[in-house]
Amino acid sequence: MNPTHDPKLQSWVESANDPATDFPVQNLPFGVFRTGKEEPRGGVAIGDQILDLAAVGLKTGPNLNKLAAAGRPVWTSLRAVLSKGLSDPGQKKRFAKYLVPMKKARLLLPVAIGDYSDFYAGIYHAQNAGRLFRPDNPLLPNYHWVPIGYHGRASSIVVSGTPIVRPLGQTKAPDAPSPAFGPSKRLDFELELGFVIGPGNALGKPVPVAKALDHVFGVTLFNDWSARDIQAWEYQPLGPFLGKSFASTMSPWIVTLEALEPFRCAAFARSGDQPAPLAYLTDERDQQNGNFDIRLDAHLRAPGMARPHRLSRSNFRHAYWTPAQIVAHQASNGCNLRPGDLLGSGTISGPTPDALGAMLEITQGGKNPLMLPNGETRAFLEDGDEVILRGRCEGPGRASIGFGDASGLVRSSPAR
Amino acid sequence: MNPTHDPKLQSWVESANDPATDFPVQNLPFGVFRTGKEEPRGGVAIGDQILDLAAVGLKTGPNLNKLAAAGRPVWTSLRAVLSKGLSDPGQKKRFAKYLVPMKKARLLLPVAIGDYSDFYAGIYHAQNAGRLFRPDNPLLPNYHWVPIGYHGRASSIVVSGTPIVRPLGQTKAPDAPSPAFGPSKRLDFELELGFVIGPGNALGKPVPVAKALDHVFGVTLFNDWSARDIQAWEYQPLGPFLGKSFASTMSPWIVTLEALEPFRCAAFARSGDQPAPLAYLTDERDQQNGNFDIRLDAHLRAPGMARPHRLSRSNFRHAYWTPAQIVAHQASNGCNLRPGDLLGSGTISGPTPDALGAMLEITQGGKNPLMLPNGETRAFLEDGDEVILRGRCEGPGRASIGFGDASGLVRSSPAR
Repeated sequence: MNPTHDPKLQSWVESANDPATDFPVQNLPFGVFRTGKEEPRGGVAIGDQILDLAAVGLKTGPNLNKLAAAGRPVWTSLRAVLSKGLSDPGQKKRFAKYLVPMKKARLLLPVAIGDYSDFYAGIYHAQNAGRLFRPDNPLLPNYHWVPIGYHGRASSIVVSGTPIVRPLGQTKAPDAPSPAFGPSKRLDFELELGFVIGPGNALGKPVPVAKALDHVFGVTLFNDWSARDIQAWEYQPLGPFLGKSFASTMSPWIVTLEALEPFRCAAFARSGDQPAPLAYLTDERDQQNGNFDIRLDAHLRAPGMARPHRLSRSNFRHAYWTPAQIVAHQASNGCNLRPGDLLGSGTISGPTPDALGAMLEITQGGKNPLMLPNGETRAFLEDGDEVILRGRCEGPGRASIGFGDASGLVRSSPAR
Repeated sequence: MNPTHDPKLQSWVESANDPATDFPVQNLPFGVFRTGKEEPRGGVAIGDQILDLAAVGLKTGPNLNKLAAAGRPVWTSLRAVLSKGLSDPGQKKRFAKYLVPMKKARLLLPVAIGDYSDFYAGIYHAQNAGRLFRPDNPLLPNYHWVPIGYHGRASSIVVSGTPIVRPLGQTKAPDAPSPAFGPSKRLDFELELGFVIGPGNALGKPVPVAKALDHVFGVTLFNDWSARDIQAWEYQPLGPFLGKSFASTMSPWIVTLEALEPFRCAAFARSGDQPAPLAYLTDERDQQNGNFDIRLDAHLRAPGMARPHRLSRSNFRHAYWTPAQIVAHQASNGCNLRPGDLLGSGTISGPTPDALGAMLEITQGGKNPLMLPNGETRAFLEDGDEVILRGRCEGPGRASIGFGDASGLVRSSPAR
């Protein structure tokens, strides 16, 4: 076992040894923070503290793109240094002065995102969403073959905690003669992971699936907020556009693939009617352990509720495509990836009713509103509602790895 | 008349007075160039020369994003200074030392493009393309109401002259039991304009249509290369993705809206079954003169052909939506635009058979190959073919304004 994964490893930062923390010394995710009037800079989460990367001589500047571009050998060395530094009591003196309480810091978007694309790798989500539109034929013929995805808007990706303004847009009721323009009435969340690209590839040079994970710096939670009514009216024939581009929320900590190594699992087990992937998406090792066992939860806190209510508990292992397949597909036509680019997984729902990653699925398109503990019901999101995504890896003989929250509170549309 | 538009204005740069030039002193488009080992920097096209913007004390750095962000008052002042400096013989001595022959310079992408989205504003293209898929119902019900668009890939936008590698991808023949992976057999071009965003808007704050052109720095030619076979198999339900993201070509010169002012024209004249736009897309002045009369040509030069063969002559006035409507729609949901963002118009075909902006339309999906002057035929593009887009504004009592070329030569797919 890589010593950085040893579940017995303890940190001299006491809060990192709390079994409930998302950030034990086995995790060491990267983020960007600022305190007071100081410039934004890179840090590592450890318990309830942030270790300024200046502790190891690293001046990242306001984003982690250069660190992302540096590649796996650099990340692995850095992880070893940080693991040792934060666990060895003899190094406390050197490192402790670089700790900042997370409560006193403002967390920022960890990377400057050049391009963002979002996939549709959750087969249960694709089935559930498809069933609402095409009851007899929920999955289109290409789904089993193509890692379906679309280009998204990078400018409106915000860090956890940023309010989400309910979008205005064109919508059309099925029986209305013409569309109307106004606030979306079917605002939804989507429970996803985001993959942050490390080293890129040159335009015209595809990335083989066996090497694809070398291009992934790490993983965040991702909420691809969606206005279902705007989306339904606009999406033919060029796909989702303004129904998505008003905002997406990213969690502030990039959990590295190194930290997730103990939670690798086999690729999605395909049933009889699900064909083997084409050769450019097939790698034996990737099939054996190219997916990740990451529990994904979505919570809702309506105004006045003391505690968030869990809407969903899913797991990334339900993804039909592995992260390597997603990256290899994106670059298969020669498209160039750049450090800091973001690839969303798409909504990852599980096969059971308690594992649905969007209101669209939970309420069957709004037809069966859900009941909240305070007695209110929700078909879709209301102003003042806060959606909180959480992610966690747990298992016997391994330290638990968390992702921190990806949260956003819905604000009313701008006055017109 | 604004003196910078005066057709009688002559430049002391002789080549700028040639009636055939794209770059008379009335144009003054902005670009980025480099010579030898010097750093890239901003310049203005004048005849067959480039005036380094250092001539007016402007150090742009490697892209024009800061100039784009500066806004219309700055652009207008700068235009006045450049117009005077390049026409007044008394200023020749001061300016001439900043001239660089265009032949000796390498032109680069003029802006760092954060986000790129592409619209579908060419109603004749939408009808022609739609007819191939849905003979009885070429335009979907939303077309007349919504400026349909999709997010595109910014990383693979290249400047004119950059070779285009034929993409590999999944395609499926209608009668094949399963898809195959290989070089696209239906590679196409798209004849478009690109609108470069100047000052942006804050997330959550829409841009009113009456103010939308204040956010447009200028206009380029744009070729949204498309692999029709990849696109056809992948595009349901999330829209075009790898069929587009392998490359798009942008012309190097950003022609400002100031230069195009004499070529404004009325918005598309809607017929009886075409409804008036919704209020958020309606501005009286925009309806009266918010569109632009820009001739758009597409040429093809196959290997061995001495001269390019014109495939198409269209005009931007056939666009169903004005640039202001496109910008206002993009930001209507609160989506933030940033300086340097690019909004493509979509393929702008005209109503006649000689005005079709893509091979898909010209050859009716490949069914009726076109004949080249050298006797060869083309259903779609072959390796070695060069596509050259040109744009020009002409009219009585006005100096002609050109765009320069947006060209790209098709190279074979990478070996596998």
